[in-house]
Amino acid sequence: MRIEHEVLKETIKKALLHAGLNEEAAEVCAKTHAASSADGIESHGLNRVPRFVEYVQKGWVDPKAKPQLVQAKGAVENYDGHLGIGITNAIYCSDRAVELAKIHGIGCVTLKNTTHWMRGGTYAWRMAEAGYMGICWTNTESCMPLWGSDEPGVGNNPFCVAIPRENGPIVLDMAMSQYAYGKLGVYRLAGKELPYPGGFDKDGHLTSDPGAIEDSKRILPTGYWKGSGMAIVLDLAAALMANGKSGTDLDEENQGSCTGCCQIFIAYDPYLFGSRDEIQAMLDKRVAAADSSHPEEAGRKVSCPGERTIQVRKESMEKGIQVNEQIWEQVKAIAEGNMDITDISVR
Amino acid sequence: MRIEHEVLKETIKKALLHAGLNEEAAEVCAKTHAASSADGIESHGLNRVPRFVEYVQKGWVDPKAKPQLVQAKGAVENYDGHLGIGITNAIYCSDRAVELAKIHGIGCVTLKNTTHWMRGGTYAWRMAEAGYMGICWTNTESCMPLWGSDEPGVGNNPFCVAIPRENGPIVLDMAMSQYAYGKLGVYRLAGKELPYPGGFDKDGHLTSDPGAIEDSKRILPTGYWKGSGMAIVLDLAAALMANGKSGTDLDEENQGSCTGCCQIFIAYDPYLFGSRDEIQAMLDKRVAAADSSHPEEAGRKVSCPGERTIQVRKESMEKGIQVNEQIWEQVKAIAEGNMDITDISVR
Repeated sequence: MRIEHEVLKETIKKALLHAGLNEEAAEVCAKTHAASSADGIESHGLNRVPRFVEYVQKGWVDPKAKPQLVQAKGAVENYDGHLGIGITNAIYCSDRAVELAKIHGIGCVTLKNTTHWMRGGTYAWRMAEAGYMGICWTNTESCMPLWGSDEPGVGNNPFCVAIPRENGPIVLDMAMSQYAYGKLGVYRLAGKELPYPGGFDKDGHLTSDPGAIEDSKRILPTGYWKGSGMAIVLDLAAALMANGKSGTDLDEENQGSCTGCCQIFIAYDPYLFGSRDEIQAMLDKRVAAADSSHPEEAGRKVSCPGERTIQVRKESMEKGIQVNEQIWEQVKAIAEGNMDITDISVR
Repeated sequence: MRIEHEVLKETIKKALLHAGLNEEAAEVCAKTHAASSADGIESHGLNRVPRFVEYVQKGWVDPKAKPQLVQAKGAVENYDGHLGIGITNAIYCSDRAVELAKIHGIGCVTLKNTTHWMRGGTYAWRMAEAGYMGICWTNTESCMPLWGSDEPGVGNNPFCVAIPRENGPIVLDMAMSQYAYGKLGVYRLAGKELPYPGGFDKDGHLTSDPGAIEDSKRILPTGYWKGSGMAIVLDLAAALMANGKSGTDLDEENQGSCTGCCQIFIAYDPYLFGSRDEIQAMLDKRVAAADSSHPEEAGRKVSCPGERTIQVRKESMEKGIQVNEQIWEQVKAIAEGNMDITDISVR
């Protein structure tokens, strides 16, 4: 079903106010969750609201905490997130990265002890909309086997890059698993096979059966050994740069997804060396060449990451935002003051 | 067959001197090619020497050109590589990134109009060996279809990250195709199937048959749509940051692999916010946890990227460096002054 944007946002906001967020934080977070759903990323939009409320109730997220500057050097700042709200912490830090880039050409903000930022792409899009190239990533608890292992050993740490194109930003928002667990659930519930193998079954065979992968917990790193290697390196890099917790530390603390994690935000001024006209013309030419690639199926359109998102967003604003009915009912119940979070089936 | 390191290096050096490199450049490049072969990356070590010589002969690489500072702002410097030697240009720029990181915490060098840097990991390893975290990537001409297309439309742009661990750097060196064309050739010549599908055949079916992929030129992006998206974003980011050529521009100029490309080098001081002891202990703990993951096959060892490279390097130094006999004969012939490059079958 589809829900009108304003209704979705206001309902989420009410739920978050009930959870203990103040007016300003509830507004920002509701906008962010609604925007993710509007962009077609339901898993980290509306669907994530009940779990966020649960985390606040458990004390895993402190809705009153603010990011605090620990230390700064040159083009880099380090913040302690004090387990505050992942979204507001990450927005603060991406905005600071842009401010640092204005001064130093490049700006880097490293954040430790923060909580789940929901959709990673939010902050890359934000930096691009401010006119800057943005790179960001997070570390997480282990949910995916390293290549060659049969037990979870690394996070599916998303990596995001945004290119500030005036005719529509190009934005990569890529987790290190081929499919997220949420996506497996969607296919299983629909009785469908995955388009490509998404993990191993309990006997160690590569499979496209989503249920078999959920059972084995052997989700596949994207590109086999490549996504596995990139995931561990992003984890190490985040913990090193922010002087914070690695995925192993998060595993030991075991306080839900991403609680206490590190996030990195890098902004870059696109017009340091080329004029706006030159840079934008280069981007437009490159994107046009990619988009006009010969399609493998007649009528299919090749596009750059982010281009379809803009279409989905437009459609959501016109026709309403696609929501899962069960989750929508649950968030409405929270918004009405029923804070008993007992069944969060879509994660 | 295996060749002793010093013999390999000196032979490559002689070949490069014949190609017109000066003493210093020939020494540095020979060391770099030999080191790549010693690390098990033959494709960009010895195997690449004949093609490099060919490029010099064609005037696509100017062995006398030096990188020239175009402009600097804060923590960022932009260089024009003037189509100089890819290796020496990239070494210069990675060293400059480290110098900038000493001052600003993070340092970023953007290089345009350069040439093939051979093995991307060289510069990430170099930054890590200097004690800095290193990130680098390049753009290239199109050699891989974008997701949904059946013709080459993007480069397999490698992305490298190095973590400066004192007990052995952790280094990701990852191209955006599941397998390189060179690897397909190796499997085809050995009469073997690829371990996992590496592309599409002419009829659009995913296949593990290396020859069928060579015929169709439909090499698979790593992680399907994910590697495709990351490849185009790395291309745009490199061209934007360096104010240089995109993959589309390189396609139009059509002067061999990477001629005129952009490369980005980012260095980060790992001890900005944590002490050396804290950071190294975090890295050791995280790597130990990854390495002790339960293996899917008894006796198989899980490891982090770079760890096996160090073992291969050690073995190469003890037993000699593995080389392809045909290429070795060819490079020896060049070293002896026979500069007629007619058959470069292993690329």
